[in-house]
Amino acid sequence: MFLAKIKGNLVSSQKNYNLVKHKLLITHQIDIEGRLVSNKDIISLDLIDAGIGDTVIVVQEGDAVQQILGNKTTPVNTMIVAIIDNIEIKE
Amino acid sequence: MFLAKIKGNLVSSQKNYNLVKHKLLITHQIDIEGRLVSNKDIISLDLIDAGIGDTVIVVQEGDAVQQILGNKTTPVNTMIVAIIDNIEIKE
Amino acid sequence: MFLAKIKGNLVSSQKNYNLVKHKLLITHQIDIEGRLVSNKDIISLDLIDAGIGDTVIVVQEGDAVQQILGNKTTPVNTMIVAIIDNIEIKE
Amino acid sequence: MFLAKIKGNLVSSQKNYNLVKHKLLITHQIDIEGRLVSNKDIISLDLIDAGIGDTVIVVQEGDAVQQILGNKTTPVNTMIVAIIDNIEIKE
Amino acid sequence: MFLAKIKGNLVSSQKNYNLVKHKLLITHQIDIEGRLVSNKDIISLDLIDAGIGDTVIVVQEGDAVQQILGNKTTPVNTMIVAIIDNIEIKE
Repeated sequence: MFLAKIKGNLVSSQKNYNLVKHKLLITHQIDIEGRLVSNKDIISLDLIDAGIGDTVIVVQEGDAVQQILGNKTTPVNTMIVAIIDNIEIKE
Repeated sequence: MFLAKIKGNLVSSQKNYNLVKHKLLITHQIDIEGRLVSNKDIISLDLIDAGIGDTVIVVQEGDAVQQILGNKTTPVNTMIVAIIDNIEIKE
Repeated sequence: MFLAKIKGNLVSSQKNYNLVKHKLLITHQIDIEGRLVSNKDIISLDLIDAGIGDTVIVVQEGDAVQQILGNKTTPVNTMIVAIIDNIEIKE
Repeated sequence: MFLAKIKGNLVSSQKNYNLVKHKLLITHQIDIEGRLVSNKDIISLDLIDAGIGDTVIVVQEGDAVQQILGNKTTPVNTMIVAIIDNIEIKE
Repeated sequence: MFLAKIKGNLVSSQKNYNLVKHKLLITHQIDIEGRLVSNKDIISLDLIDAGIGDTVIVVQEGDAVQQILGNKTTPVNTMIVAIIDNIEIKE
């Protein structure tokens, strides 16, 4: 699980039918000070109605997302599970 | 899940019997501007009738592909699940 | 599974409902001499009441955490499973 | 899933009993032109009677191999699933 | 799956109760000539009574270890499954 910022979204007309009703967002991994860790474009399913610019937690895990969507054939394994308000660090 | 471009396909006469009827494509990871991220050759099962040159979403996840194919013994964990028409980015 | 030190915690008001009652900590991977291996911020679910500064074992594995929490829809795959007291090395 | 070339095999007298009857091969990842990508030694279970020097597809996926072997306790997650005859690339 | 050498063991008094009776060892990945590939400290559950200095196969796979231990809530995904006596390479 890692921190990420939401950068954009994807438009697709031809996709697996299990993905038709779901929003897919482009996320970039960041560190706890908000700096970009990598500009690898990670595509994530949105589970919590997040928007562009939000700081979120991204999880890479297949089984849970399929259980949440109630459909074992949804071919997705990356999802946004929380929006972060604050980070407390002890140096 | 990541963006990729389809580059070629593989011909194999000796393979696990669960793979016999499926198309295996070579994909390269790209970024949201279409630039190559890595020239690692990622072999992906085609679930949506994609063709060479298409921009697609690739998912690495074993359980879902086996559920979709209705066969728990298919030894595959990488699949093409959507063709991308457009990408919307907010800078 | 790897060694890590706990660095901080995350505050989130909008998250998947399965995560509401759980503590999420920020961990950094270390080596057996306590040196930082990477400053990648790894978000981990706390299973053993660990605190900031502790040396712990972090496991990345989805199924077990869902079984432990008794809930197959908890979207989590990284957890803290032990606090380390001592490390014995034979050179 | 990736392309690999088979380099050697392993001899072990003390191993988990589920592994006793299976052949374990050393594979090296290659690209579509047959060049070495990494000299990381990846240990793979042979499912299709491949031999040293063959170009093969390697899959890293735990569930399928256990289903194929009919044994949920076989501690293996890397397998050789096809021998490649030809690769078609469109530049 | 990869080759590793066992370097040490971990002592922990506060851990998840499923881990209480199991031996956790520190392993380092090596190549087929016995050279260190990475000094990343990988923590592995011992399934075959291996000792410090042994050359072993390490597997990263959650489901199998939980089936072997007969306990779906054991939070472990890395295990030692074989001790290597000999490696045969064809150049």
